Amino acid sequence: MNVIEIIKKKRDKKELTESEIDFLISKYTTREIPDYQFSAFLMAGFINGFSKKETAFLTKSMLHSGKVLNLNSITGRKVDKHSTGGVGDKTSLIIAPIVASIGIYVPMISGRGLGHTGGTLDKLESIPGFKTNLSIKKFETTLKKVGAALIGQTKEIAPADKFIYALRDVTGTVESIPLITASIMSKKLAEGIDALVLDVKTGSGAFMKNQSESEMLAESLVSTAKSFKKDCIAVISDMNQPLGNHIGNWLEVLESIEILRDGKKNDLTELSLILSGIMIYLGKKAKSIDEGIELAIKVLKSGQAFEKFLQIVKAQSGNINIILNSNEYPKSKYYFELKSEKQCFIKEMNTYEIGMAALELGAGRMTKDDKIDHKAGIIFHKKIGEQINKNDTICSLYSDSQEKINLAKSRIQKAIKFTDKKTKPKILIKKIIS
Amino acid sequence: MNVIEIIKKKRDKKELTESEIDFLISKYTTREIPDYQFSAFLMAGFINGFSKKETAFLTKSMLHSGKVLNLNSITGRKVDKHSTGGVGDKTSLIIAPIVASIGIYVPMISGRGLGHTGGTLDKLESIPGFKTNLSIKKFETTLKKVGAALIGQTKEIAPADKFIYALRDVTGTVESIPLITASIMSKKLAEGIDALVLDVKTGSGAFMKNQSESEMLAESLVSTAKSFKKDCIAVISDMNQPLGNHIGNWLEVLESIEILRDGKKNDLTELSLILSGIMIYLGKKAKSIDEGIELAIKVLKSGQAFEKFLQIVKAQSGNINIILNSNEYPKSKYYFELKSEKQCFIKEMNTYEIGMAALELGAGRMTKDDKIDHKAGIIFHKKIGEQINKNDTICSLYSDSQEKINLAKSRIQKAIKFTDKKTKPKILIKKIIS
Repeated sequence: MNVIEIIKKKRDKKELTESEIDFLISKYTTREIPDYQFSAFLMAGFINGFSKKETAFLTKSMLHSGKVLNLNSITGRKVDKHSTGGVGDKTSLIIAPIVASIGIYVPMISGRGLGHTGGTLDKLESIPGFKTNLSIKKFETTLKKVGAALIGQTKEIAPADKFIYALRDVTGTVESIPLITASIMSKKLAEGIDALVLDVKTGSGAFMKNQSESEMLAESLVSTAKSFKKDCIAVISDMNQPLGNHIGNWLEVLESIEILRDGKKNDLTELSLILSGIMIYLGKKAKSIDEGIELAIKVLKSGQAFEKFLQIVKAQSGNINIILNSNEYPKSKYYFELKSEKQCFIKEMNTYEIGMAALELGAGRMTKDDKIDHKAGIIFHKKIGEQINKNDTICSLYSDSQEKINLAKSRIQKAIKFTDKKTKPKILIKKIIS
Repeated sequence: MNVIEIIKKKRDKKELTESEIDFLISKYTTREIPDYQFSAFLMAGFINGFSKKETAFLTKSMLHSGKVLNLNSITGRKVDKHSTGGVGDKTSLIIAPIVASIGIYVPMISGRGLGHTGGTLDKLESIPGFKTNLSIKKFETTLKKVGAALIGQTKEIAPADKFIYALRDVTGTVESIPLITASIMSKKLAEGIDALVLDVKTGSGAFMKNQSESEMLAESLVSTAKSFKKDCIAVISDMNQPLGNHIGNWLEVLESIEILRDGKKNDLTELSLILSGIMIYLGKKAKSIDEGIELAIKVLKSGQAFEKFLQIVKAQSGNINIILNSNEYPKSKYYFELKSEKQCFIKEMNTYEIGMAALELGAGRMTKDDKIDHKAGIIFHKKIGEQINKNDTICSLYSDSQEKINLAKSRIQKAIKFTDKKTKPKILIKKIIS
């Protein structure tokens, strides 16, 4: 097989065969195909697209470029959730204990935050002692014992994706639905799951800014999962404002505790229950999504979910005392409260900018090597649709650096648009695709 | 300026500015932009195209990546010819002396053969002693003194093209009209010419197999030349059979001598006179192309052109005794004559295959490092439209290896299709574009 001929075929809008795609992916993974040829292929594919079949072949080859977990020794359904990423999105921390409480196994391989979005791994690591770099063996035993385990991407899983993603990042070939699909699905299918729930974000804080693009991505993901005989349902959820009230790693753990333990109710609670409900349905512990949601509410209210959360933290070497006594956690040196000058409503939030402000405070990283300040972040006391009175605090910023507070403050001030007229709360769930 | 943003702009079908294109080309030439980013850009440009403006900017940046000759010290028009390449195409050897005889300067920077096509440099080097690697200084003094000088690409001229061409070759981005245009024109404009004649080949032995593609290329080349204030006329000429009767380096020098000295008349003579006529017209020594052709015929008939040919050979250290006594040139050890079994006509020739057969005999090179056998090649005694009687020799193959003769023979036999019915000669000039 000749790499140039395959590139030309995609360039000329022809459909590639399974063996052609496998040749490209496997030889690129072993570095036998150089970057400059693979990037020409990626650009041809970006512009001319990939068919459903081709997308499945890409996924398959990337999946088999590394280890595929075999969780057959665990009897019971294995269901995971994947989010396309947003600001304040901490549903994994709430969902995993809820669903595991019902008796469904949740093998979660998560990512780190980059740019304006947070990452589950960083949030978990804000818990003192919490280990996300478990070996595959330890991951399996923890999953079996506790019902959920959360780790980071390992070198053994889908190495092709790692190489391809790095190349896409520097060649202007990131925003391609088939390439995004193959990247996500190759990693998720490697987890040895039976079913998957997808939370595809749409809006100013999401990678896909408009809903039709988000729907196309959701459809591509669902159809690819199904071609691998995995049950899959996608939720298109709003990301035109931060999810929940807290942004920043430890602040997000705190909000998860408030929901799991203290019964806090907001959009984060709502989305977590819906996603849990779908997972419970796909995990065959409920006959419908609604029944799944009811079960989720039950284990949340009963405290079983919080109990499971503590078990997960403990199993992964996290300090549960700090969870139980969260006021002992170190505090940021500086804070700033953005107050309202008059009665008003939030009209619009540039959620990307809010994510960037949180990053600027120390909650995120611009490059992979940046160090995170786990305490830093933002708490929003008001969201779109809520009435704000004069002198009400709209949000609080936390950082160990006054300079960072100042930078983030001006960013936040530009990112929020106010109005005198009452605004409607955002509709959280835009669509469910199955 | 950000390379990824520029790649994305081309990817999204937007027109690039002069400074964006110059940034890409200059940074790629200095290797500050890596191959993998430039190949993504090339593929985006290949698929989405480049406007006339962009093509001119590409050409300009590639031209200025190296030295641009200044021939202002030579008073008189400087006119060159460029051919897109074919089989048996030796017009440069005939045109340069004809046009220089009229008092027009011909500064020719030529290429080597690669694949099925021959190259002027290899043909000239088959003349014992002939030097094509003159310094720029020597090139200029030779041009001034003799009226024509023929050298190879130097490192100083359009280095960007060298890098870009090598990358295009391995990333499936060769057959792009704007990229071909920039590649050709950046090198030709570096010669310091006033005008240019283009011989754009079309047919089975050309890089562009169909006429509409050849016309598009010709139009792109002419319009780009004009944007640099250079007079330019393109001829679309037939390449559905070898040009003239001889293929192979010394064999082609021989045929040039037959035309320049002995008055041989065939399609090669005809095309050489037309191209010369256009150059003479563009060189302002004739008021029309027809008048230019008449002048060309005159200096050819009078022997002035042959005399000029000898001057050129001598000025570039070639042995003119062997030109005058060509039967003293070494002969190939083996030959084979393809005879006709019955009365017939040639219906069709796969000229690409014929070029490959000549290469196989030793006349060409598959890779840049292959060594050429200057004596090797093919002489066609019959062409499309000529009657062939039983036992007539259709063509003769020459090589120092019997094995190569056998391989080329079977290739040639497959490449030529015969018919009982009389066939029409091919129309040589398909179109003139100015």
